[in-house]
Parts: sequence; structure tokens; C-alpha cells
Amino acid sequence: MASATSSSANTAGGGAVPEVPELDPGDRLLCGPGPSNVHPRVRAAMQLPMLGHLDPDFWDILLDLVAALKAVYRRSDGLSLALSASGTSGMEAGIASLIEPGDTAIVAHAGFFGARIVEMANRYGANVVELNAPFGQIVTVDRLMDALRKNPDARLVSVVHAETSTGVGYPLQELGDALSRSGSDALLYADCVTSLGGQELEPAAWSVDYAYSCSQKALGCPPGISPVSLSERALERIRTRKHPAPFSFDFELLEKYWIERPITYHHTLPILQYYALYEGLRLCLQEGMEARWARHHDAGTYLQGGVRSRGFDLLADPELQLAQLTAVKVPEGIDGKEIQTKLLRRHGIEVGGGLGPTAPPIWRIGLMGVNANRETADRVLDALDDVLDR
Amino acid sequence: MASATSSSANTAGGGAVPEVPELDPGDRLLCGPGPSNVHPRVRAAMQLPMLGHLDPDFWDILLDLVAALKAVYRRSDGLSLALSASGTSGMEAGIASLIEPGDTAIVAHAGFFGARIVEMANRYGANVVELNAPFGQIVTVDRLMDALRKNPDARLVSVVHAETSTGVGYPLQELGDALSRSGSDALLYADCVTSLGGQELEPAAWSVDYAYSCSQKALGCPPGISPVSLSERALERIRTRKHPAPFSFDFELLEKYWIERPITYHHTLPILQYYALYEGLRLCLQEGMEARWARHHDAGTYLQGGVRSRGFDLLADPELQLAQLTAVKVPEGIDGKEIQTKLLRRHGIEVGGGLGPTAPPIWRIGLMGVNANRETADRVLDALDDVLDR
Repeated sequence: MASATSSSANTAGGGAVPEVPELDPGDRLLCGPGPSNVHPRVRAAMQLPMLGHLDPDFWDILLDLVAALKAVYRRSDGLSLALSASGTSGMEAGIASLIEPGDTAIVAHAGFFGARIVEMANRYGANVVELNAPFGQIVTVDRLMDALRKNPDARLVSVVHAETSTGVGYPLQELGDALSRSGSDALLYADCVTSLGGQELEPAAWSVDYAYSCSQKALGCPPGISPVSLSERALERIRTRKHPAPFSFDFELLEKYWIERPITYHHTLPILQYYALYEGLRLCLQEGMEARWARHHDAGTYLQGGVRSRGFDLLADPELQLAQLTAVKVPEGIDGKEIQTKLLRRHGIEVGGGLGPTAPPIWRIGLMGVNANRETADRVLDALDDVLDR
Repeated sequence: MASATSSSANTAGGGAVPEVPELDPGDRLLCGPGPSNVHPRVRAAMQLPMLGHLDPDFWDILLDLVAALKAVYRRSDGLSLALSASGTSGMEAGIASLIEPGDTAIVAHAGFFGARIVEMANRYGANVVELNAPFGQIVTVDRLMDALRKNPDARLVSVVHAETSTGVGYPLQELGDALSRSGSDALLYADCVTSLGGQELEPAAWSVDYAYSCSQKALGCPPGISPVSLSERALERIRTRKHPAPFSFDFELLEKYWIERPITYHHTLPILQYYALYEGLRLCLQEGMEARWARHHDAGTYLQGGVRSRGFDLLADPELQLAQLTAVKVPEGIDGKEIQTKLLRRHGIEVGGGLGPTAPPIWRIGLMGVNANRETADRVLDALDDVLDR
């Protein structure tokens, strides 16, 4: 991946010093399940002068960032901020904050990330009611509401809005409406890692209490930041906790840092990553969320047409198929991993494979952020034709 | 801080869309306690093509990064990797991993960050034996060893190698040697956030079991990454835990991602931040660790001479004074905060103030990474003269 260079390293006293080769990564068209390619304006923002995390001008940037997050999450109440962490930590922050040991949590899963939520909930001592469905399907709203009737003490209901491992979407609005009508105290927790910025998402209107996402998919930023959005109900739950959440994910302390002025030190934020997110959100709002969702929809359905016309089957139930992420079944007799390697080495194109040991043989093709357009879809389809010798 | 620009944001359906101003941060010479300015080669590395976190070429980069981390931490055994998180999370990851509820932890503190370790240990259910000393001083090795004799069941002894809030260094080698001679099973945990790369640090030779640092101080990278180094004893402790640590800080899972091949997915790493760290560590090794420590020492002592010659007093006991970070007492009758603001607005220079409500009135001046040189010291001294009208 890189050429070794001569090093002037001083080895005195420290034993052997390794030759660290010059960093020389190849160009990639990132059409897997994420990260997607970073928008040039986002890259440029990361070259701006770096302020300190306690600089009053940076505090102003944070307030603008919160306003932009609220607009992208379409939620003016509650708390919106971004964790200095991956989407996985966004997942963990929500479970750690909204679940206490012994609490009942109803967790629906039909893929890798839903199953990971089960693992997280177990880690924090929840009494987990697991509902699952085959890959490509979902646990229906009826099944979830039935489980809630049988577990009226449930404190949390968890679904994955866009399951990154299967390309399946969840009817989150329908679930939120049903939960809302039921009068249950259970909070609605939704993995929005692959949905935010790429499809309609309305946490406030849909009664979602905790939504978390990432920076590196439909937002078109580099990975490393997890934008989250909490309802007032979720904040109230956090304020009345008996057991502390991890310090890094303590929303009461984070709210003090992000919102109150003068600022209270919590941790040193990854400043350049926040510049990136700032510009990424600004791009979303300048494009308009509806236009952005429509662009992702157009690119994805175009790709899916091309995939199907080549005789491939998709993993997802067609009614539930995401636009921004498509899981294609690898036909019998083809080594899916070998095809991925050829796409990478011959064409510089990354597509994903199945995630985890139980995944079926699939390719996962994402068209997100700057890659959500028909031209990119054609590049992937042409490259697939080439490596499959069609 | 920024000029408003016209926005083409689509407001249909989403309510009012905020005008997000163009990002336009001012130039800064970052001479507070961190972040320091980013080395130009590190900035350039962040503009390289972005690989995915599951790209085999990125896996190679990670292995080179681990080799570089081991060289910078001067430890070939145990586990060295970098958390996708701040130094604060590095602090938390160590406590969460090495302490179980009810374990006794002896925590020495004489400043903000030592006190934060007490808070973390309490959060994870430790029986904390607190030892403290006034700001500018340390809890001596004798006091710590005495506390260990009185608490022979202690599982952890914690100190801050370089206290970021006071500019005080800890004789870590002396403590490590004493602990080692004592035959205690207690692990030695050391906050090295402000020491790694800026002064001698030899975790293996000094019997340090858990050392954590950050990317944005003496390593000259942007904030967001926490390099950590664990001994074999620390790993053994982790493998025999009864209660799980947070998933994000689970070193057994992280070791699988970083070290094993083919890689096991854990979370999506902030790729560009790792490019930055890679180049930052490469710069350290090319300069040579001893040369880098000497450069920080020269710049810091030069600055301290200039500060003292102007009649200012330093907070730290002279025997314990760090070179890379200097806490200057604000003289009676001067508003320290106002001076900081003038330095920032007139000269674009950031210096720190006291951290936390109990801090005495001080300025904290850091000369770290690219700023560790006499020219930068002179710029800060000249600017201080100007804003103090001397």
C-alpha cells in the first residue's frame, strides 16, 4: 500500500525504531455501506485554521452546529448534539442513558445492527425481550405492539430505521404513531445510522425519543461523529436515572458543554471533525432535505433497476427496500469476496459483503452523500459487468 | 466569527431552516494546554484519499500504526492501539476496564485531571482511597506507598504523569520502581495526556500498566484520538473481568479489530484522524524521541526563564515543573481572563486559564508539538508584554 522511505529516526535508548512507510492510500469510489466519499467542501473545511475547544469563536460554531442538527433532524425540542464518536458509540450512549439494570427493553432485530443493540442492552443489564425476523424482513409493528401489551412495564422499544447489514427500512412513522396512541411510557429508540440525510426522517413528528446516526454515510462527512437527537421524554428519563452512564456519554454533562455559556469543559472535541460535520450539514440544508432524500431515492432505484435487469436478486423484501443501500444476493457458483477484491483492485471501487458470521452471501452497494447519483450507479454497474465477465 | 451567506435551503415541510453561516475561523497560535497547532504534514495527510475501515490496505496501515505506537510508547509487549476518542475517554476506558465494582483504587490528585480520575473511579463503583496535595505539588511516592501498605487489597494505583491543570510532573519512574519492588498486585495507571511525545515516558521500563494520552498536544495532531498502552498484566486483568466494560472501550474486542486478520468489525474508525495520527507518529520517530523531548525541554525552560525574568511566579514546585506546560500565577490586581481575551483578539494567541471552580488564577502556557521552540516562546512573551502594557 505504501513505499518505504528512509527514516532519520534516532534509535538511541528506545530500541529498534520501525520504518514507518509513507502514507499512500489509493483512490477509492466508496460504494459500500459506508463510509461514502467525502464532499470536497467538507474536505476543504478540515483545512481551515484550528480553534481550541474553549475558544469563544468555537462556542459560536457549536451553537450554529446545534441549530443545523435540529434542522436536519427536524426537531426543535429536546436535545440535539453530536457525540465525538462513531455511530456504534451513539448506539451505546442511548442504551447506557435510557436503560437501567433490570429495565425491560423490547428489541426488534433482523440483521447485524439490531442484534448488536441486543448485545448492548444485555451489557447494561436490561431484561431484553428479543423479537427477530429473517434477514431481508422486519419484525412487524403488530408484533412489536403485541410484545408491548405482554410486557407493559417495558421502558424501551428499539428498532433499526435502516438496517445497514440488509438494506431494509423500517416503517418508523407507523410504529411511532402506534406507540403514541398506546399511551405507553416506553421510549422509542431508533438506529438511524444509514437513514439520516438519505431518506425521510422526522423524529419529532414520529414520536422517536432517541435517534442516532453517523457522519460518514448520507451526510457525506468522514467517519468519527455521531449526531444524536433526544426528545424531552428521553431527557426526563436521563435526569431521573439512579445509575450513572459512562462519563463520555453523559448527556447531562454534554448538554452543559454544548448549550450552556460560558461553556463547561467536558472533553476536548475533535475540532476538525466538527468543522467537517458543520459543512456537511450546511450542504444538506442548502440542498434542502426533501431534495436530498429525492436524490438518494432516484439514484438507488436506478441502481436497483440495473441490478435486477442483470438477473440478480435483492435480499430485501421489495416493500422494505432502502434506496441508499442495496443488498444483492451473490448468485450460486460465484465467490462474492473475490468479486469484491476485483472491484477494489481493478476499479478502485469498494462495495461491502455480508456482515458477521450469520450473514448470507451478499454484496452491499451504497449510493450515499456525493455518490447518490445515476453516474455513480453506472460506474458500479459497469465495473460489476467487467469483473463478472458479462 | 463568520459572515452570513445566502442559502438556497428548501424549507418545505421542515419548518424554518436556519441560515448556517460560512465557517470562517480566525488564525490561532495555540499556546494553551492543548490543542497545539497541527503540523503541516499532518494536515496534508488528512487530504489523502479516504479508504474504508474494512479495506485491506487500511488494515495494513493499522498494523504500521501499531508498530509506530509501540515505538513512541517504547513498549513492545502488551497492547498498544489508539481509541477513536478523546484523552478523557482514554481515562475512562482504563478505569472501566481495570476496576470492577467494589475494587479498591488508590488515586493521587493535585489538580483537575487527578480529581476527574476520582470521579471516574466512583462512577465505576470503586472503593476510592483519595490522596491529595495542593495545586503545584504532588502526592509523594512515600505517601502513595504508605497508602498501599494500609490497603494491601488495592487493585489500582493512579497518578497523573503531567497534570494539565497545574504544569506539574510526577516522578513516575520512581513510583513504578517502588511498586514493582513491593510485589503488589495493584496495577499502575498513569494519565500521560500531556507527557507523551513531550517528555521522557517509558511505560515498560517503569512498570506502568495502563498509560493513556491524546493526539493534540505534544504529538502535534488534531484532537480526537487517544493512544493507549497496556501491559500484559493489564490485559490479564481485563480477560478475567466479571462485569463488562462499555462496548466502545472493550479492549478485548478492540484488540480483535486492530490486531487479528482478517479483521473483525467493531466500529467505523475515523479514518482521516488515523491518517493524521499516523503522520504525527512518523514525524516523532523521524525526529527521534530523545530529540523531541529535548526540544520541548529547551523551549519550555527558555519560556520559563522569560516569564520569571518579568517578575511572574510559577504555580508548580520548581522541582516538579513540566517544560511543555507552564502555569503562571496571575499577579494581584490583574484580571487574568481579560489578558487572555486580549492575547486572543489582538495577537491571535490562545493561552489557557485555570480549569475548574477551585483553580487559582493562572495562565497556562503550552509549547507543544510544532510550537515547542524558542521563536514561539518569544512570540508569546512579546504578546504578553504588549497586552500587559509593560
